[in-house]
Amino acid sequence: MPIHFNNAGAGLMPEAVTQAMTGYLAEEARGGAYEAEQRHADTLEHGVYETLGRALDAPADDIALFDSATRAWSSVVSHLPFTSGDRVWVTPYEYAGNLILWTELRRRFGLTIEVVPLVADGDLDLEWMSAHIGDDVAFVAVPHVPSGCGIVTPVEEIGKILAPWRCFYGIDACQSVGQLPVSVASIGCDLLTGAGRKFLRGPRGTGFAAIGPRLRAQVSLPFHDLHIADMVADDDYEVNTSSARRFEYAERGSAGVMGLDAAVRHHLARTDGGPGPLRDAVRAAIEELPGTRLVDPGSRHAAIVTFTHDRVSPERIRAELRARGVNVWIAQGSHTPLYMRTAGVEFAVRVSPHYYNSLADVETFADALRDVLR
Amino acid sequence: MPIHFNNAGAGLMPEAVTQAMTGYLAEEARGGAYEAEQRHADTLEHGVYETLGRALDAPADDIALFDSATRAWSSVVSHLPFTSGDRVWVTPYEYAGNLILWTELRRRFGLTIEVVPLVADGDLDLEWMSAHIGDDVAFVAVPHVPSGCGIVTPVEEIGKILAPWRCFYGIDACQSVGQLPVSVASIGCDLLTGAGRKFLRGPRGTGFAAIGPRLRAQVSLPFHDLHIADMVADDDYEVNTSSARRFEYAERGSAGVMGLDAAVRHHLARTDGGPGPLRDAVRAAIEELPGTRLVDPGSRHAAIVTFTHDRVSPERIRAELRARGVNVWIAQGSHTPLYMRTAGVEFAVRVSPHYYNSLADVETFADALRDVLR
Repeated sequence: MPIHFNNAGAGLMPEAVTQAMTGYLAEEARGGAYEAEQRHADTLEHGVYETLGRALDAPADDIALFDSATRAWSSVVSHLPFTSGDRVWVTPYEYAGNLILWTELRRRFGLTIEVVPLVADGDLDLEWMSAHIGDDVAFVAVPHVPSGCGIVTPVEEIGKILAPWRCFYGIDACQSVGQLPVSVASIGCDLLTGAGRKFLRGPRGTGFAAIGPRLRAQVSLPFHDLHIADMVADDDYEVNTSSARRFEYAERGSAGVMGLDAAVRHHLARTDGGPGPLRDAVRAAIEELPGTRLVDPGSRHAAIVTFTHDRVSPERIRAELRARGVNVWIAQGSHTPLYMRTAGVEFAVRVSPHYYNSLADVETFADALRDVLR
Repeated sequence: MPIHFNNAGAGLMPEAVTQAMTGYLAEEARGGAYEAEQRHADTLEHGVYETLGRALDAPADDIALFDSATRAWSSVVSHLPFTSGDRVWVTPYEYAGNLILWTELRRRFGLTIEVVPLVADGDLDLEWMSAHIGDDVAFVAVPHVPSGCGIVTPVEEIGKILAPWRCFYGIDACQSVGQLPVSVASIGCDLLTGAGRKFLRGPRGTGFAAIGPRLRAQVSLPFHDLHIADMVADDDYEVNTSSARRFEYAERGSAGVMGLDAAVRHHLARTDGGPGPLRDAVRAAIEELPGTRLVDPGSRHAAIVTFTHDRVSPERIRAELRARGVNVWIAQGSHTPLYMRTAGVEFAVRVSPHYYNSLADVETFADALRDVLR
């Protein structure tokens, strides 16, 4: 088995997750998928929402499931009732997929997109936020941890700044759920989205959102699926829920939902202290090698360590480490373009350990990297 | 193992499909999901599009994958550039989910929704279509086989009627792919959508569309994901494909896609004659029992047989058959409301055999049903 330092891509599913999925698939293949769904309705219709609500510190009624975190984010944000003149705040750490959506919304509504400035060390300028917030700010989008580098943004502090104002507050928590404590209640956000596959160690093709009632009430969706709507006349329909399930489609990969539920329960049962110490060890191992340059802004850090080398390309480092049994990945500057262009990073090596890795894994990684960069 | 006559809900996955999925999941859990995706890029990025293209008789560039057929349909139809005064044709067999979307589009654009009339036996009135088609018809939506009853609509003949006109032509093929020959080229449609899980025997959470180039060129999507788009400046993005993959999101359940690919290849290798003879046997067995009433419009029929009984409720019949080892399902009138309300059907029993069932299965079903209705 390789040493897996690509948890920011996708974490290794624990046995509880693969077993939940393969067992469910076998049940479907043997006795029918609709029939299996009826037998597991407790988990599929209720349990998974409750476990996710517990993991995110949010009411189960606020939880909706999707096939990806991108779908979760866009299913809400694309349908917000913006008006011309609205300001939207993003950070330099915004994910390119989200920036594409903001660009589209700017074209459609005439939004003004403002980028929150950074202070010298790369942290977000909270004083600027306090000084410039107003009721013409309609939405503030913050990644809890960006995918390209491991800065942890102060989402609770920002929540306190925004609380008195009318703006909606959305958190992309793809890289934080599973490695850092995430509490929708403490952050005070209206939207928080995440993916099953990363530090939560769940299956691919699963995403989720906590969508608060104030935000839900404002979104007018272009489509409601049959699990929560009825045609009440030949030319009229009604929606029969006010919960976040309004944002879902009826059909989904039930095996994936079973796997997501198992991953969240596995996560809730954890007693480890998180990947912080491994992150520090990885960072130290990289820093001591000549020619490396860390892409490491900010004062608080999660288990994503990104670096370049002055001679060996990131892709070559990745491939050579793979050949030596260590999985790392490439951070593309274009995926976090606002920050990475300023930092001059087109590609970098991204190393993302998790709690199930060991300090011995870090030593193996360090030896392999030293060998590659020799 | 139960006798599975609920293929219109979800067919039983063959071993090739569950093995493709569980093998892939094990590979992800052992060595990383992004790493597995790289190893299987041939199938995930190319092969599955080519096999689906072969199965649907459509170019691979026209194929897009989704997490459901509903998503496939709505991802295209929600973003069509309708204008006020456009007429849209649906049939009495339109699925309620699609009707909800049409209702929403009527509100948004001021469309006129016209329901194609039926002739006496329940077939679509093709003469009416020929007489009333014009260039103010913007879209014609036809289910190849509705989910509530087994009529086969004459999609090729309709295609010939529509060919000279400007309208887009969309086929919901959820219930036909896998049990009837489906050829996008012969139908001459611009859009054809389907689900992996039904007669194709693929996994849940998989859907697909063939989206023709004339239609693709007209759709302006509110969002493009990072696999086919780049931020080319801080506030501008560009899409880098004209293929149907423009409609996809980057993240998806790769194991499901592997399962879908295996299901389509399994389907393409079939040499059976389809479920027609079993359908006839099921229909005959139901018809000969006193008190049953078939919901069976039209002159051509697929392997979905729907019926009610004058004394025993559909739900009781379903539950009692399940207790006797036979899976059937409930057709809800509200899911095909235009036709079913006229037919006076609120709920019915839906029996949907497939080629892998046997005539002995039909006899077991007939004995069990006779017992339940006694």
